[in-house]
Amino acid sequence: MADLTYPLKGFNNINRYKHQATYDVETIHSIVNSSPVLHVSFVPDPSAPFPIVLPMIGQMGLYAGDESQDISDWHCYLHGYVSSRLMNLTHDAVKRGEEGLPLCVAATKVDGFVLTLTPNSHNYNYRSAVLQGFGTIVEDKDEKIWAMELITNSVVPDRYENTRVPPDGAEMQSTRILKLKITGASGKIREGVPEDERKDMKREDVLETVWTGVIPVYEKLGVPQPGPYNRIKKIPDHVREFVDQENKMREKYALDAAHKPAPAKRMKKSDDN
Amino acid sequence: MADLTYPLKGFNNINRYKHQATYDVETIHSIVNSSPVLHVSFVPDPSAPFPIVLPMIGQMGLYAGDESQDISDWHCYLHGYVSSRLMNLTHDAVKRGEEGLPLCVAATKVDGFVLTLTPNSHNYNYRSAVLQGFGTIVEDKDEKIWAMELITNSVVPDRYENTRVPPDGAEMQSTRILKLKITGASGKIREGVPEDERKDMKREDVLETVWTGVIPVYEKLGVPQPGPYNRIKKIPDHVREFVDQENKMREKYALDAAHKPAPAKRMKKSDDN
Repeated sequence: MADLTYPLKGFNNINRYKHQATYDVETIHSIVNSSPVLHVSFVPDPSAPFPIVLPMIGQMGLYAGDESQDISDWHCYLHGYVSSRLMNLTHDAVKRGEEGLPLCVAATKVDGFVLTLTPNSHNYNYRSAVLQGFGTIVEDKDEKIWAMELITNSVVPDRYENTRVPPDGAEMQSTRILKLKITGASGKIREGVPEDERKDMKREDVLETVWTGVIPVYEKLGVPQPGPYNRIKKIPDHVREFVDQENKMREKYALDAAHKPAPAKRMKKSDDN
Repeated sequence: MADLTYPLKGFNNINRYKHQATYDVETIHSIVNSSPVLHVSFVPDPSAPFPIVLPMIGQMGLYAGDESQDISDWHCYLHGYVSSRLMNLTHDAVKRGEEGLPLCVAATKVDGFVLTLTPNSHNYNYRSAVLQGFGTIVEDKDEKIWAMELITNSVVPDRYENTRVPPDGAEMQSTRILKLKITGASGKIREGVPEDERKDMKREDVLETVWTGVIPVYEKLGVPQPGPYNRIKKIPDHVREFVDQENKMREKYALDAAHKPAPAKRMKKSDDN
């Protein structure tokens, strides 16, 4: 498969630190998919005092019933509290002939604290992605069950089939899934060792007194804690293996990121527009 | 100090799972202050296709120059890429006689994956907070330096005074700090063991086959990695102690949360409005 990128549409262009920007579809999907929480923003109505941000769980996917040429057609399926207001806003938008409710979805992972000679050069190692698009409520029963499985297994792989399924009628009714059709997306990644300004790199007094380096940061999964009504003595493989593998992978990513070469600063000036 | 709460103003009311809602000022501040990334949402202009979400670093604080009665008057100081567009939007709002640019700031921390008998009862242990208010750019030089110190030390305590300070003229000019005056705020906390529906708790076949429990989740700080131009042999106390203490505290929080009693379900039905 060729390297696919999301098209630049103005509203999704990154104008600052362009060398850290990415529009690569696979990279953006991986940031979204590995974020346990996505922040979903929408405007309740033009007269509302503030936009709204809701934390939701989400995953990229393509339903078999949808036609598609490539992975840039994948949707973002979102699960969380879909309020009556959010339902109504979405229905109203569709009724007006629009594609859905305009949403902006953000995913950010912190991979390290980058400690430099001066406060201003301090930074994070991080990966962030933003999706813009139109949200609709999934009404099709088969697609809804498929999305519930997709999202459950995004938290712990194979979890869905290791629980009491399929969902019954009441569960189907009480669950709402938002489906985001993506019209624009972008990502930003910073990884690497500290970087300082040339003026400070010449200061012997500063270099001799200030520790510089990276504190790696990653989400650690602790030892699974059986609940009060659990009867299964041994932690099942799908839980234990997930915890072990994820912890190794996450720690390695943060540590590797702390040792990569610093992002070039060459574009910094021309960048800031 | 009495328990202070943010007032209910309609736009910040939580209508779902009310027993998990909080308007407590100290609780909300602590969620914001312990989140390494905040998601800041604003509407670029009424004709824009989508709201915008930016990841930023932020911290609650009260500048000595501001008058105040209590901590509910504290501001949220935000640091990150403040684009020319964001600058202009803020200036325009102030010029129109408004208090600033309407912003919604969200902070979410995941404390555990709660694995239950059915996919629908799966949950996270988490803490989330949302602030609504008006953002302005900090222009006062003293307040700006104070805010830079506040934000730097929010990443690693005492880091500011252990670097080359104060910022010089160029650094002062290139740094922009957003100050959010809070008009409404709310928080939501879920902690505790798994909870399932009564119908599944009666199913012997399900109880005998599905493992239930909590995977604790917390942000782990790895061993600090010296950078390529670091000359300080020993990791300084302000870094080492921070890493050690934070790791102990974070692990303990996630583990404790995994063992607390489950949130009452009694309000679930009446909640959903």
